Amino acid sequence: MNDAPLTLLGTGAMGTALAHAWLKAGHPLTVWNRTAHRARPLAERGAVVAATAAHAVAASQLVVVCLFDDASVEETLDGIDLTGKDLVNLTTTTPAQARARAAWARERGARYLDGGIMAVPPMIGGADTGAYVLYSGSSAVHEAHRDTLAVPAAVTYLGEDPGHAALFDVALLSGMYGMFAGITHAYALLRADGVPAGELAPLLTSWLNAMTHTVPKMADQLDSGDYTKDVVSNLAMQADNDFLVRTAEEQKVSPELLAPYLRLMRQRVADGHGDEEGAGLVDLLRR
Amino acid sequence: MNDAPLTLLGTGAMGTALAHAWLKAGHPLTVWNRTAHRARPLAERGAVVAATAAHAVAASQLVVVCLFDDASVEETLDGIDLTGKDLVNLTTTTPAQARARAAWARERGARYLDGGIMAVPPMIGGADTGAYVLYSGSSAVHEAHRDTLAVPAAVTYLGEDPGHAALFDVALLSGMYGMFAGITHAYALLRADGVPAGELAPLLTSWLNAMTHTVPKMADQLDSGDYTKDVVSNLAMQADNDFLVRTAEEQKVSPELLAPYLRLMRQRVADGHGDEEGAGLVDLLRR
Repeated sequence: MNDAPLTLLGTGAMGTALAHAWLKAGHPLTVWNRTAHRARPLAERGAVVAATAAHAVAASQLVVVCLFDDASVEETLDGIDLTGKDLVNLTTTTPAQARARAAWARERGARYLDGGIMAVPPMIGGADTGAYVLYSGSSAVHEAHRDTLAVPAAVTYLGEDPGHAALFDVALLSGMYGMFAGITHAYALLRADGVPAGELAPLLTSWLNAMTHTVPKMADQLDSGDYTKDVVSNLAMQADNDFLVRTAEEQKVSPELLAPYLRLMRQRVADGHGDEEGAGLVDLLRR
Repeated sequence: MNDAPLTLLGTGAMGTALAHAWLKAGHPLTVWNRTAHRARPLAERGAVVAATAAHAVAASQLVVVCLFDDASVEETLDGIDLTGKDLVNLTTTTPAQARARAAWARERGARYLDGGIMAVPPMIGGADTGAYVLYSGSSAVHEAHRDTLAVPAAVTYLGEDPGHAALFDVALLSGMYGMFAGITHAYALLRADGVPAGELAPLLTSWLNAMTHTVPKMADQLDSGDYTKDVVSNLAMQADNDFLVRTAEEQKVSPELLAPYLRLMRQRVADGHGDEEGAGLVDLLRR
């Protein structure tokens, strides 16, 4: 059933991309946006532009929300009858906000599914872009609307805890920003010598791809509780890393992006865990 | 010519792995190590164990050095006749140390090639392990001994500047540690909820691999000087990232590994560059 009607609240860059994907696939779509002129172009593509959020919500059982933040969701839906609705919230939130919003929706008679979009707008609705949405919360909503939800991007369902989509979303973004920090530092080192970044790029791409073998290995060490399992390059060896900071100093590059991780490595060795790889550093981050 | 003789100074974990690879390939090998008993097992595999570093250096034209640090190289080779030698230094150093060591070697009548090993010892000498050594410095040494040097790991030659092997080595390691920092933060977030790291691992591996598309793109932005080229997700959008730090706080995870990069993003936006992606953060690291 690929012609199921749905409502979309929020037509910013991401909401507009979602709307285009559903319209293109033939879904009757009702949209609403606080700033009405941003929803209007979608009318030309066949969307019904609702005058109020309440009208938009009343139009469909499936209500997808893609707003600025959790406060905008509350403000937009406050006082609107959600009884019997299937609320799918793609707004970026924290896990705790998602859980609270799920309880809030249940109190109002709605079923709640939370989503975290792992894509930028141009990737939405395309073929093989790698875009996907992490979902968690009501498995009933996930099952009832899976085909519709799968139109803009692939669906990855993470279970009943409505906080897990946001948790995994933030975890993936955090991993990415860590990698970006490393790339930034690497290019800064070269720039000081006037070496084009393009000379490092192919080496850095393959190196980082190769080093992602650490991801499942570290997971296995963490989940088994044995941080010395399959150790190849232990922290005692890795922590002899003065040359990393010295190189940054020589190249007149601030070590600020690298320093916190190097500090945790040294601390873990000082704590007597030089025989491990990096898994134990996870424990040092716990407050 | 795969039976060229050579000398190796330093038989720690890496030196021993290199020695095994050359011996296995049939190269006559003379070894020396400051702590003699660590070199002795190599005699059983056919290596000549020299009594002194001077004897070891005298034994071959090609002298490979794999010691603890730059100071150990100076201490070991001090006063030894290097005239006519081809010195290949695989000791981990900074770019400036490598350049100074190259000048030092030239003054002593030797040709100098510097190397940075992009592998851990178990990867040395194996087939298809992805191990390689970055070399820079004398192209004559590189050309004369390329076949011998290619035995333990693939050879990547970066040109005449003897500092570039160390520079690229440190840049790749820095990129890697950034990525490790991100992975560490990601797993710490899950751990607070008791979610097994193994549930995130396959998603995180593909996500990081997909995000390495940033590496050549950012290089292109940096080298062209146009940081707004092909922008998909600009900093102004990305810098709305309170949810990242708030999630860390909710999960009782220290944001220390993530915070410096987020701070640079905000600073770049505040400086009026919200229309860029991350390339401009490289400039913020320059001192």
